[in-house]
Amino acid sequence: MKFIKDLKNGDRISDIYMCKHKLSATTKNGKEYYSVTLQDKTGTVDAKVWEPGSGGIDEFDAPDCIDVFGEVTSFNGALQVNIKRARKCHEGEYDLSNYLPVSSRDNDEMYKELLQIIDSVENEYLSKLLREFFVNDKDFIDLFRKSSAAKTVHHGFIGGLLEHTLSVAKLCDYYCRSYPLLKRDLLITAAICHDIGKTRELSLFPINDYTDEGQFLGHIVMGSEMVGEKARKIEGFPELLKQELQHCILAHHGELEYGSPKKPSLMEAVALNLADNTDAKMETFTELLGNVTAPGWQGYNKFFETNVYETRL
Amino acid sequence: MKFIKDLKNGDRISDIYMCKHKLSATTKNGKEYYSVTLQDKTGTVDAKVWEPGSGGIDEFDAPDCIDVFGEVTSFNGALQVNIKRARKCHEGEYDLSNYLPVSSRDNDEMYKELLQIIDSVENEYLSKLLREFFVNDKDFIDLFRKSSAAKTVHHGFIGGLLEHTLSVAKLCDYYCRSYPLLKRDLLITAAICHDIGKTRELSLFPINDYTDEGQFLGHIVMGSEMVGEKARKIEGFPELLKQELQHCILAHHGELEYGSPKKPSLMEAVALNLADNTDAKMETFTELLGNVTAPGWQGYNKFFETNVYETRL
Amino acid sequence: MKFIKDLKNGDRISDIYMCKHKLSATTKNGKEYYSVTLQDKTGTVDAKVWEPGSGGIDEFDAPDCIDVFGEVTSFNGALQVNIKRARKCHEGEYDLSNYLPVSSRDNDEMYKELLQIIDSVENEYLSKLLREFFVNDKDFIDLFRKSSAAKTVHHGFIGGLLEHTLSVAKLCDYYCRSYPLLKRDLLITAAICHDIGKTRELSLFPINDYTDEGQFLGHIVMGSEMVGEKARKIEGFPELLKQELQHCILAHHGELEYGSPKKPSLMEAVALNLADNTDAKMETFTELLGNVTAPGWQGYNKFFETNVYETRL
Amino acid sequence: MKFIKDLKNGDRISDIYMCKHKLSATTKNGKEYYSVTLQDKTGTVDAKVWEPGSGGIDEFDAPDCIDVFGEVTSFNGALQVNIKRARKCHEGEYDLSNYLPVSSRDNDEMYKELLQIIDSVENEYLSKLLREFFVNDKDFIDLFRKSSAAKTVHHGFIGGLLEHTLSVAKLCDYYCRSYPLLKRDLLITAAICHDIGKTRELSLFPINDYTDEGQFLGHIVMGSEMVGEKARKIEGFPELLKQELQHCILAHHGELEYGSPKKPSLMEAVALNLADNTDAKMETFTELLGNVTAPGWQGYNKFFETNVYETRL
Amino acid sequence: MKFIKDLKNGDRISDIYMCKHKLSATTKNGKEYYSVTLQDKTGTVDAKVWEPGSGGIDEFDAPDCIDVFGEVTSFNGALQVNIKRARKCHEGEYDLSNYLPVSSRDNDEMYKELLQIIDSVENEYLSKLLREFFVNDKDFIDLFRKSSAAKTVHHGFIGGLLEHTLSVAKLCDYYCRSYPLLKRDLLITAAICHDIGKTRELSLFPINDYTDEGQFLGHIVMGSEMVGEKARKIEGFPELLKQELQHCILAHHGELEYGSPKKPSLMEAVALNLADNTDAKMETFTELLGNVTAPGWQGYNKFFETNVYETRL
Amino acid sequence: MKFIKDLKNGDRISDIYMCKHKLSATTKNGKEYYSVTLQDKTGTVDAKVWEPGSGGIDEFDAPDCIDVFGEVTSFNGALQVNIKRARKCHEGEYDLSNYLPVSSRDNDEMYKELLQIIDSVENEYLSKLLREFFVNDKDFIDLFRKSSAAKTVHHGFIGGLLEHTLSVAKLCDYYCRSYPLLKRDLLITAAICHDIGKTRELSLFPINDYTDEGQFLGHIVMGSEMVGEKARKIEGFPELLKQELQHCILAHHGELEYGSPKKPSLMEAVALNLADNTDAKMETFTELLGNVTAPGWQGYNKFFETNVYETRL
Repeated sequence: MKFIKDLKNGDRISDIYMCKHKLSATTKNGKEYYSVTLQDKTGTVDAKVWEPGSGGIDEFDAPDCIDVFGEVTSFNGALQVNIKRARKCHEGEYDLSNYLPVSSRDNDEMYKELLQIIDSVENEYLSKLLREFFVNDKDFIDLFRKSSAAKTVHHGFIGGLLEHTLSVAKLCDYYCRSYPLLKRDLLITAAICHDIGKTRELSLFPINDYTDEGQFLGHIVMGSEMVGEKARKIEGFPELLKQELQHCILAHHGELEYGSPKKPSLMEAVALNLADNTDAKMETFTELLGNVTAPGWQGYNKFFETNVYETRL
Repeated sequence: MKFIKDLKNGDRISDIYMCKHKLSATTKNGKEYYSVTLQDKTGTVDAKVWEPGSGGIDEFDAPDCIDVFGEVTSFNGALQVNIKRARKCHEGEYDLSNYLPVSSRDNDEMYKELLQIIDSVENEYLSKLLREFFVNDKDFIDLFRKSSAAKTVHHGFIGGLLEHTLSVAKLCDYYCRSYPLLKRDLLITAAICHDIGKTRELSLFPINDYTDEGQFLGHIVMGSEMVGEKARKIEGFPELLKQELQHCILAHHGELEYGSPKKPSLMEAVALNLADNTDAKMETFTELLGNVTAPGWQGYNKFFETNVYETRL
Repeated sequence: MKFIKDLKNGDRISDIYMCKHKLSATTKNGKEYYSVTLQDKTGTVDAKVWEPGSGGIDEFDAPDCIDVFGEVTSFNGALQVNIKRARKCHEGEYDLSNYLPVSSRDNDEMYKELLQIIDSVENEYLSKLLREFFVNDKDFIDLFRKSSAAKTVHHGFIGGLLEHTLSVAKLCDYYCRSYPLLKRDLLITAAICHDIGKTRELSLFPINDYTDEGQFLGHIVMGSEMVGEKARKIEGFPELLKQELQHCILAHHGELEYGSPKKPSLMEAVALNLADNTDAKMETFTELLGNVTAPGWQGYNKFFETNVYETRL
Repeated sequence: MKFIKDLKNGDRISDIYMCKHKLSATTKNGKEYYSVTLQDKTGTVDAKVWEPGSGGIDEFDAPDCIDVFGEVTSFNGALQVNIKRARKCHEGEYDLSNYLPVSSRDNDEMYKELLQIIDSVENEYLSKLLREFFVNDKDFIDLFRKSSAAKTVHHGFIGGLLEHTLSVAKLCDYYCRSYPLLKRDLLITAAICHDIGKTRELSLFPINDYTDEGQFLGHIVMGSEMVGEKARKIEGFPELLKQELQHCILAHHGELEYGSPKKPSLMEAVALNLADNTDAKMETFTELLGNVTAPGWQGYNKFFETNVYETRL
Repeated sequence: MKFIKDLKNGDRISDIYMCKHKLSATTKNGKEYYSVTLQDKTGTVDAKVWEPGSGGIDEFDAPDCIDVFGEVTSFNGALQVNIKRARKCHEGEYDLSNYLPVSSRDNDEMYKELLQIIDSVENEYLSKLLREFFVNDKDFIDLFRKSSAAKTVHHGFIGGLLEHTLSVAKLCDYYCRSYPLLKRDLLITAAICHDIGKTRELSLFPINDYTDEGQFLGHIVMGSEMVGEKARKIEGFPELLKQELQHCILAHHGELEYGSPKKPSLMEAVALNLADNTDAKMETFTELLGNVTAPGWQGYNKFFETNVYETRL
Repeated sequence: MKFIKDLKNGDRISDIYMCKHKLSATTKNGKEYYSVTLQDKTGTVDAKVWEPGSGGIDEFDAPDCIDVFGEVTSFNGALQVNIKRARKCHEGEYDLSNYLPVSSRDNDEMYKELLQIIDSVENEYLSKLLREFFVNDKDFIDLFRKSSAAKTVHHGFIGGLLEHTLSVAKLCDYYCRSYPLLKRDLLITAAICHDIGKTRELSLFPINDYTDEGQFLGHIVMGSEMVGEKARKIEGFPELLKQELQHCILAHHGELEYGSPKKPSLMEAVALNLADNTDAKMETFTELLGNVTAPGWQGYNKFFETNVYETRL
């Protein structure tokens, strides 16, 4: 496949791209045309369909994947694809991971790993609660596995929420071995559930943007509420345990000014905050280094609030 | 009644006081005695029952009200009541407002006023939600009317939550008349519900202290969850409206660092934050002036972060 | 009248507009021409007078209102008016409110309402002080009624200072009814005077920009000084009362970092700060919603420090 | 003279001390006595007059200096003077500097030095303004020369305001020689006037406490107002110059959060802030080292926000 | 051994305690006596030697361990040991860990574990640098193994620096496995060296207090300087590698306001800061829970800035 | 010489300019050309060599000074020099101060003045240390005298470090006369050494950018290390004195958040911070006023965090 970042003036293309936006417009002469943005995982390019009514142009809309035949031209210093033929593809014709950012890890494998960790939780109620979400609730599982963990910052790709959750849970597992006073069942359960509110805070790709309830309530409060509701439905779930679990979720940003309505009061809540913060920073730096073009100083980085450097040893 | 703040060395007392704490202890000689703290609305005093087994001493415990006969002595520079006779009283014998801080406004009247405001809400779903809490749920109403609005700061007395809620709702009503873009039904409903989580964050008097869930979750999150649950049970309650209402509650502290997980995004949420803040500050200054002994400068005040002054005009 | 925001390429115009800027310039060929900015309440447009010496072009300058005859053309993607004839208008020919932002409320009516509130002040000295400013000092009254309350943020229009002052005074009046310990005369007087320094901090429209003394001293200090001077001229004005009034003005921004040299020490100063803040936020949100083009999320708002939303109920 | 810090149980004293407080009280037996606090520059001591009516006890009150004859006893672990005879002294009998903290520099000499600096100001209006305060206004001069510059921190002694003012003015003079763009007349005038509001913010010794207007308005605003009033009385005083001078005074704390309602906008205002800050910190460290008993680390110091150390070289 | 926390009025003791302070004083009658503080790992107790010259009293001083024979009495509500006989002990007679706080882990074992990690560093220069410190420099090794990691907060015991260093290094090792872009050799070396400056910032137990250079320079700067010096002595040590290692040490507190003169610019520096912070918080909570007497809420904790809770599951 | 800021369309130039950047490129027709930026102290201008192979074009590169013969044309609204002939100059043909920002003070004279101050230091060890750097170390002296004190802010020109150092040292000398408790030798030595780390933090002009070690370690830590190393080589240099000197350097930014790892604990460290800050602010304002084109308000200034004004008296 010819990736968008490799297109050059004068190229002919005949490949499948995702339609990110499509707009019907009119030229000065009153002729209708389509203004389209094509996208793959390497970027986007402006495109035009000057003859929408012509035979080779299917009905299509964002976010369809379309098989495009056309020419690459240059307009005002930017590339533009002149679309001659456009055919709407059906699922199976293309590999979605070519068009949208996707976790580099295999989704099935990550999910399997998560289930193994869930299996290691011994407390009857916490185990039941985890299973309700991650084993029994097919809709939730589907959503959770597809979700990204962010709109712009770290783990902002399909499967990102699963990858981040797994990473945090494993870090917490390491903590439990190093700091024996930690209650493992509580910490592991909190780690696995800490960002489940993100399944509702962000819409799925290709949109991956904040939902209304995401903006009004936020994933922290929604996650706590989801856990609270589930626990209430499990007979005999200890009230205090429910509160402790919700507390870990509410406090996982660590500071009020980062959006947690409570600071961590439990050793497990402190640990979860540390694990979440650690994975966020390590992944952010990893993504940053993945985008480095020249070694050395990379300029001021807003997230790390300083000039960052690619180490070579 | 002889109030505790007026007791003097040598006084004899024969009056009803509340038992705040009671402890069984042993003298150096191995004799059992009771160490008791007596309380009324003016303060507390240490007391001892040196002859627990004697005829005139009933069985009693905190927070019973007991009819005490005894003498006031001085021990190590502090007053101490030597209890000779102690009879446990039954409800009706005493006026609770002599023993615990109570709102200066009549509770029935305030509740009636609140119901009138609820009646003015026109939106079918918001009206239904308010009625579910404040008209139909007897346990909740009872709790709400008795609750204080704080452990130490403003409105920290029986009926304080009701008084504060009413005051905020009326202020919001005034706003609606002055700023016509405000959606009255949403704002009034949010005002009335904004602190309902406090019914579970603080235990009732005479304890009036943070509960476990109060510390783990906080009244902001609990209030939002209570409203969310109630709305879900009302058929047809619009999802967006539910989110807006929850948002107003979550954002009513105005800033993340004050414990709100979201900053106000709606004009109504901004208004609720202003009304809550206004009533909190005005009541705090009112309580402060009520405790002034000499006019003029009152010294540095932590809440107002400056030296405060009693104005005389 | 044809408003600037509705102009299109090819339009002919024959209407009165305000001249906001006028510059004499020379073409490459050495010919003189005028570069002019025309303004009405809907926006501004670039304009040129290519033949300044021709018969139909009057002498005019900013901020005259001129009757323009010309053609709308497009230059470099922006509209430009080619002015063929320009006649300077005299007062009475046009309605100023078409050219400058003006309060939506009637100025006479607001002033009358303000006088009624002033009439309600009972303290002899405070009453006298208010009358000196708002009844007897014609220059001040004229200035006060025309002033805006801000360069860019809320109430930044003609009559804005009067509208804001009235709104704050009425809110304070409401507070006095709700919180009886407030000294009404002091609070109402402070509310009415709190922003009088703005009459000198900002120049009048169409300029509406900071003056030298506005930048060097600020309206808070100037307002306090104006009140101090006036009070000193009123025989018998109690010194302490003068200080309390000045204190309310100095402290009305509430925090040192917002430019108040003192934090509020009086209950009235706290109340004034709350009323000022409430009206500022409610008006800002009102103006914001007035500019909304599509409902829903409006993007990040610097003043409210969050994404704001237009509620529909 | 026997200083208070050297008194020991069993001493007899016969010396002049200042009466700091005096209270009439009654013993358990109903006998009247005086409870007195005696003070000299080394500290204070509790004292009692058990026989107020006896022959040797004059009428006296705070802050009189009295010639005391009595015995030093120990009561509850603290010293107490049993006053047998007390004679009220008249000015001239004692040296005030033994009883109150006084600048170590000669007041006349400092004043003379200040006048010399004033003589060096060339601008006609600034020169006139300085003379109005420091040459012609006898009451002001008297007050200014006696005032301290603080209640607790640096220069908190009689003559402290003069000493600090002189030091700041000389530092500014040095700046003018080093940084030639500084306008010397403006900077020197601002330096000399920057703290004149302190003559009214603090009452004189022995009280040396905040006045009402000091708390309500603060020395920054009062100083600016004093300069403004004086300038308005000088015919022809340029308005802009007056504003610049007031600005320097208003901005001399450098930051809004330190109580300046404006940040420095003029190079002279920046310079004055630096000079004021420099003298404050150097004098504070000087006073701190003057109180050092053992060399080395002196413990955490609130003003410098760190552990401070006495250097020996 | 009878621990100090278990002493009761009337006890006789005959055990070895550490002398923490010793002062020679004189009674009112002019007789010399010693005022002594005895210490073991459970606390301290006041003690007196009333007959210093008597036969059974050896010469001893802080911090000797002395074999004490005496009686426990009560004075002013506090226990006091009346020392009848005191014999200075020699090393070997007592187990130091009874008298001073010591790591619960075996020192030899921790050191061995550290050496194994050092062995895993492959880079020739970093390996050499680590060996210079931790294998070849006997004085340094001795100091490092005895040092505590803090005066008051986490790891404030003998062996604490070693225990903390090991824990941080192992956490970093885990990070290297999870985040493959981390350069393991750099990170592990930085982890092992990050707090070596503490060997000079704090004096050894029983004093365990800040040294002069500790206060003047701090362990961050000293650690960086120690590493810099050592690297300069290793022939061929790459200059950039030296700077990166020093940077990791300088930046390990993560924020300027926590005393790091640079924010982390390298992924390894970010990782080290996270590991250090994680171990600090987990150990602090572990020590806190170790001191819990009653389960549940433990009150406001300054380090965690909230009320903390002991979880029971 | 014709300065770049005075070039006009149509000018012919025949003068020496510095080549700041040079890039070899290819026209659409495949012809090679050079794109060059020429620089002098008044600015930069774009230039092209269309015929690189032609006779009159020498080999040259940044940062050579080249004698240019060419024509000034206008391209896309900006000037462009069409270079016809370019000859690489050798040192001596040009005056570097025409091409790079240079201190307005004579470098030799400043250095002489610095040596005089060094001569005034009496303490044997401090004197020796200063001489090692500023008299004996020719490489260091050369570097120090050429260095700028900043990349962008104050003293960002050749000789700037020397000028700033001298100014700070003289200010400290003035302090010593005004505040006699200051230890002059320590303060003067610290003042002279406080920024020596900048010789390694910034590369020399024309680059004047942060070096690797500048970014990793910073001039504060490097300066302290340089002083530490030098002191260790001077036999008998008192350890405590070395620490105090290093402390002054480490603490000279005054606050942790400004990059000092320690707050000032010595009076001399406080003084150095004040002198450094004073010179920085005065020079910044001086440079700012030097760039003023029109008097009056200069707009918001990021460094002074307010709108700044050019005073005219």
